[in-house]
Amino acid sequence: MNARPKESDLPRGFSFASAACGIKKSGLDLALLVSETPASAAAVFTTNRVQAAPVIVSQVHLRKSRAKMHGIIINSGNANCCTGSDGYAAAAATSLEVARQLGRLHPSQILVCSTGVIGLPLRVEKILRAVPDLVRAHRGTAGAFAQFTRAIMTTDTRPKWAAAKCRIGGKQVRLIGCAKGAGMIEPHMATMLSFIATDAVISPALLQRALRRAVAPTFNSITVDGDTSTNDTLAVLANGQSGARQITRQNADYEKFCAALESVCRSLALAIVADGEGAQRVIEIEVRGAPSDRAAGQVARTIANSPLVKTAFAGADPNWGRILAAAGRSGVKFDFERSDVRIAGILMCRRGLEHPFDERVAHRKMLAKHVPIVVDLHAGRGFARVWTCDFTGEYVHINASYRT
Amino acid sequence: MNARPKESDLPRGFSFASAACGIKKSGLDLALLVSETPASAAAVFTTNRVQAAPVIVSQVHLRKSRAKMHGIIINSGNANCCTGSDGYAAAAATSLEVARQLGRLHPSQILVCSTGVIGLPLRVEKILRAVPDLVRAHRGTAGAFAQFTRAIMTTDTRPKWAAAKCRIGGKQVRLIGCAKGAGMIEPHMATMLSFIATDAVISPALLQRALRRAVAPTFNSITVDGDTSTNDTLAVLANGQSGARQITRQNADYEKFCAALESVCRSLALAIVADGEGAQRVIEIEVRGAPSDRAAGQVARTIANSPLVKTAFAGADPNWGRILAAAGRSGVKFDFERSDVRIAGILMCRRGLEHPFDERVAHRKMLAKHVPIVVDLHAGRGFARVWTCDFTGEYVHINASYRT
Repeated sequence: MNARPKESDLPRGFSFASAACGIKKSGLDLALLVSETPASAAAVFTTNRVQAAPVIVSQVHLRKSRAKMHGIIINSGNANCCTGSDGYAAAAATSLEVARQLGRLHPSQILVCSTGVIGLPLRVEKILRAVPDLVRAHRGTAGAFAQFTRAIMTTDTRPKWAAAKCRIGGKQVRLIGCAKGAGMIEPHMATMLSFIATDAVISPALLQRALRRAVAPTFNSITVDGDTSTNDTLAVLANGQSGARQITRQNADYEKFCAALESVCRSLALAIVADGEGAQRVIEIEVRGAPSDRAAGQVARTIANSPLVKTAFAGADPNWGRILAAAGRSGVKFDFERSDVRIAGILMCRRGLEHPFDERVAHRKMLAKHVPIVVDLHAGRGFARVWTCDFTGEYVHINASYRT
Repeated sequence: MNARPKESDLPRGFSFASAACGIKKSGLDLALLVSETPASAAAVFTTNRVQAAPVIVSQVHLRKSRAKMHGIIINSGNANCCTGSDGYAAAAATSLEVARQLGRLHPSQILVCSTGVIGLPLRVEKILRAVPDLVRAHRGTAGAFAQFTRAIMTTDTRPKWAAAKCRIGGKQVRLIGCAKGAGMIEPHMATMLSFIATDAVISPALLQRALRRAVAPTFNSITVDGDTSTNDTLAVLANGQSGARQITRQNADYEKFCAALESVCRSLALAIVADGEGAQRVIEIEVRGAPSDRAAGQVARTIANSPLVKTAFAGADPNWGRILAAAGRSGVKFDFERSDVRIAGILMCRRGLEHPFDERVAHRKMLAKHVPIVVDLHAGRGFARVWTCDFTGEYVHINASYRT
């Protein structure tokens, strides 16, 4: 993941560009993804009642173009959310200008995304001025993709990308994706911003189905702070240029593609948690023995969003009592005196009682980059796994003065 | 509140004692409240599925004694939670020894409470050894009460107490209460630990009714971190020694008593928030115009527990977009483009759009000890008010190494 993308990771027929148009005080803040030919598109968006203008506009575009898209334009540094009619106009003007510069496309063939501060007017003239050069600059190279992954960042400390391949009918199909997001992360239906390009041959409807399936155990199973963003967007474009056999129904080809898509989604989702604001480590929470999978998810998510659990992990403190207490307030019925808790592979609580363990060994194991928790409620067969990060003083520092 | 209690604040017939028995590394960790005569008792407890042994034992005692109690024994430094059958035995032995030392009372006339770390065995022999001296030391003085308020503290930085008076049938009725709690605070039905003594003449059933009514807009409307404790207990003892007219039904006398009780509960609840772990300021969140009062509460609580909102307040950053975004993910239906947000009396968002305001003035006003937020959804007549505190690096510091 920290390696640079290689030319051989890129699916055919996609190109990328980025620019600094002045929305951020400094650095890249405008990014463009282009498919040479119309691509099947699938996307999922935030479930927050407060939705940014580009989220609304992109949904309209997907319907209008019947999910055959040519590109995605993204600005970072301003969310274009709570910006009223000017905000909608800005998103529409941006896609119009990109469509015009790409050569007589319909604006509905362009998705538009924004990320950054909520409620400040978007200076769209800065974007419109930069679009002609941006469009001229787009290249199908690994370097252009690497720049693209940086241009969509806000409080992220590093770019996040992932690639996968599968063989369909003897031909290689490639997927490459990237994501941004470090705070305001509890995706419901989608993450903050993530884009995946593939040269698979697949219809928009089947692509949407594959995407929904891939999102549930990946992006929808992570949380940094429980705050669902107003701008969450995950979009996949499939332009068919691999020349592989078309995926027309839920057969073996479809399963192979789904596995590759899920692998890209999982890598990106975990990279978001690992780069959570101020995070030192990823916490993997597995809940077993719940009354149902849904109940298991509820318990896992309550643990994952507990400030007391997350701060204990910041100090690598084996405070299993906070984990069980969080489970206890999740709303799920279970008998805590039958429950077990394991942290970093060490059984610390057996049937609701402390199980003897070496505190120093536990502390040392909890200093790892990836620490698993397993909670077994012994109340059924429900299972869930979610990922979160620890909660450090640095998170507070980042968010106490984000706006000013 | 920061003043010391006066003799004239004390209801008649109650006395207090405290001691250092060695459960904490240093300082007072054992406290006793005694009523000379059997007192009507009412109590509310945590709704967490994980409940500490003393919570279970106290509930059994209330039933057994038909809510006529003689005293409350409290230890700080160990929650006696997830301690199995030894934990129940410890709580039972503690109340037995207190009852014996007080002179042939039944153990069920004693409530028992614990607060501190979860999951460590309680060294009950330390408590049992200290009880005889503790019982001998109990005094009905303001100084003894002041020591009592300190002995129940854990991460609290200051004792929290409140008093109120009302006249019933020409006689003065007094109420005095105290509370502890700074983290793991989102009381449901009760707070961490709070005790109120009154010399009012009232039956247990009517006292319980008055308590439930007083708790809803006070203790049940605060949150520090959304983590409901396993030990929450709020108990009121009314020993009737004021000689005032007995409160027998929901008449004018009852209303006067309820008002005094609610005033004590509100003072204590707000004192808990003001002393929230690492807190610099109290944030009062008022939600108006929701589809229902219940929906308003849901929105207010989501805002109150949003790490992004709470960290913005740590930096006195007027980030109204995060408030609206938190409302948007609360699950309540509303049109954000009709919503207004006001912070510290300044209108910052009108109909979902930024309303021009002076950032420097806003920042200065947000540095106050008490900062109000008003969110008007313009979606009905539902109303709710909750209180929380800001989320600082100090909270993380306290909780990253609480146990080790």
